[in-house]
Amino acid sequence: MLPLYGIRIVDLTQVYSGPYATFLLAEAGAEVIKVEPPEGERLRLGTGAAALPFAMFNAGKQSVTLDLASDNGKQDLAALLSAADVIVENFRPGVLAKLGFDDERLGAINPNLIRASLSGFGSEGPYRSYPALDVVIQAMSGVLATTGFADGPPVKAGAALADILGGAHLYGAVLTALLHRGRHGEVRHVETSMIEATYPTLASSLPVALTEPDAANLRTGNRHGAGRVSPYNLYPANDGHVAIICTTDRHWQRLAELLGLELGSDRSLTDTRARLARIDDIDAAVAAATAKLTRAEIFDRLAAGGVPCGAVQDLREVVNDPHLLATGALFAFDHPEHGPMTLNRSAIRFPSLGRGPYRPSAPLGSANATFFPTQMPEAKAKA
Amino acid sequence: MLPLYGIRIVDLTQVYSGPYATFLLAEAGAEVIKVEPPEGERLRLGTGAAALPFAMFNAGKQSVTLDLASDNGKQDLAALLSAADVIVENFRPGVLAKLGFDDERLGAINPNLIRASLSGFGSEGPYRSYPALDVVIQAMSGVLATTGFADGPPVKAGAALADILGGAHLYGAVLTALLHRGRHGEVRHVETSMIEATYPTLASSLPVALTEPDAANLRTGNRHGAGRVSPYNLYPANDGHVAIICTTDRHWQRLAELLGLELGSDRSLTDTRARLARIDDIDAAVAAATAKLTRAEIFDRLAAGGVPCGAVQDLREVVNDPHLLATGALFAFDHPEHGPMTLNRSAIRFPSLGRGPYRPSAPLGSANATFFPTQMPEAKAKA
Repeated sequence: MLPLYGIRIVDLTQVYSGPYATFLLAEAGAEVIKVEPPEGERLRLGTGAAALPFAMFNAGKQSVTLDLASDNGKQDLAALLSAADVIVENFRPGVLAKLGFDDERLGAINPNLIRASLSGFGSEGPYRSYPALDVVIQAMSGVLATTGFADGPPVKAGAALADILGGAHLYGAVLTALLHRGRHGEVRHVETSMIEATYPTLASSLPVALTEPDAANLRTGNRHGAGRVSPYNLYPANDGHVAIICTTDRHWQRLAELLGLELGSDRSLTDTRARLARIDDIDAAVAAATAKLTRAEIFDRLAAGGVPCGAVQDLREVVNDPHLLATGALFAFDHPEHGPMTLNRSAIRFPSLGRGPYRPSAPLGSANATFFPTQMPEAKAKA
Repeated sequence: MLPLYGIRIVDLTQVYSGPYATFLLAEAGAEVIKVEPPEGERLRLGTGAAALPFAMFNAGKQSVTLDLASDNGKQDLAALLSAADVIVENFRPGVLAKLGFDDERLGAINPNLIRASLSGFGSEGPYRSYPALDVVIQAMSGVLATTGFADGPPVKAGAALADILGGAHLYGAVLTALLHRGRHGEVRHVETSMIEATYPTLASSLPVALTEPDAANLRTGNRHGAGRVSPYNLYPANDGHVAIICTTDRHWQRLAELLGLELGSDRSLTDTRARLARIDDIDAAVAAATAKLTRAEIFDRLAAGGVPCGAVQDLREVVNDPHLLATGALFAFDHPEHGPMTLNRSAIRFPSLGRGPYRPSAPLGSANATFFPTQMPEAKAKA
């Protein structure tokens, strides 16, 4: 039996961050009822590969449609909530209350209901009502300021890290609230924010920023954010790049052995401080050796030899990565609505419990008849 | 009462990812006993600001030291585990078993014990034993390939996103296992991996990579990863940069009003597709307007007006951000071991339960006398 069997979630979230949390809930066995406006949520875009983000983040959920501006829609939502454990929402703070569902009303509908909410900046403080998307949070949290090269502009991370960090923390928040309810009784509201979830990612750069008044520019390209590690960089392969990071002196010795570096026999370079003093020589020597090899040759040799190394894979390589396919993290799937695509399972695994079956993202409103058998025909037609 | 009151965690993790998970557990009320080698874990570096990452990720925990290579150390660990709920570890897969604590032994010590583990690539598959640090995962998952500009090299995100994503998922994994144990009984092992936790961050770029055979280069600088949104870029301010993202036509109309853009009255630009066809004109017009203003003026005007906007803050500005300080996300603290620094609380909040007191990271081995009253004097001396 999956861990969240019998837990019912009413999911009002849209786009990436909130839906990622409810995807994890669904994969852990919860019954997730995704509530969308009659026209569908903003991420329902076309078919084929363009539908991939929607399919990724909405697997395992049922879809119902409600017009929350209408009295009928509000009544149907109240009925759903009366039999639910958790309502998950990523509206801006205050919006759910304006729709008629403040915490007092939610408690009257269902005293055991937990409200779990995610927003960009949290429900308090001067920025609480400001709109927040992933890049807004990257800017405000310092991710942009620390990404890129010293002689270039700030650069956004290509990864939607603030969204997925927000969603992962929201999943943890829901589980904490469920555990609390079972052990200690009522808990009305649990929340997280994208900016708080993203802040800890800056740990390496924060000490530099705080101690060196002139270190205005923390963009160190592909070198270590605090200038503390060498070798630590991107190095050329004959078919792209690899990242190599030697956080210990032992890593450096092994790297030198495995790449046959002459500098490896230089005893003055056995400690990190000495290597940092000659960082350009070290980087040049490593690059000269790696440039003759393919990414796969370097990755296999170094990683198997215990030296932290990653091949810089493009996304086509990532979705065909033999490790991710062998472990079932990714799998090829013929989506009933959107056609063949590679999809992912939850990053949280219970080896002794196994996985549930993969349930693809559902067509818009396909569960309306199940949950609203008496819904007005007009509302059904809209869906 | 905090949600995890009475839950005891034995924490064998080091550096960022695992310790972040156990920091969240401690902040939610769990008793976390951090087990370090006699010389301390790798992240205990000096004092002052250099100690900030250690202090960030180890607040709320007690510290004990054990030499796990020795019989005494193994006995003391077994004694700790016999009275614990969860062991959390981020060794490479197989290392804990080699130390004498495979799952059979753990079950014999304590049949209710949950083992929660985090690794770079997971405990199965061809890369399972490869060393993994944040940048290794950024390379292998496609984060590097999608960060930077089309005419430049791949760039690492300055944020340690794979570490913190791994830790946040590990927290969720522990909570799921605790809930499962309470509802359904035994669960021996729960795990997550940094690469699986990071993969979903690439959602925006994956469709492009999969559908356009020639889109080898997905580095779009500060523009949208899938080329779908305009305006969406970094724009100059007279004291730095701001990020502005108009995901809806309404955002564009508001932006044009708030910045007084002449292009705002061009009816041919009311829809996204039309704006994308003239993306350079749009970006130039926005930049001409923003360049006259400060970041704060732009942020306040646009965000309050409902247009997603973020000021690019450097880290000194981030730790002094009035919003983060007002909400208590960050706070100034005089650390008893490391002096004055700005620290952070858990991103998961229970407004009705409040926070527990902040308990700073503990000196190495400071809880040895509590947990090992009969420990050999030599071991005590080492600590």
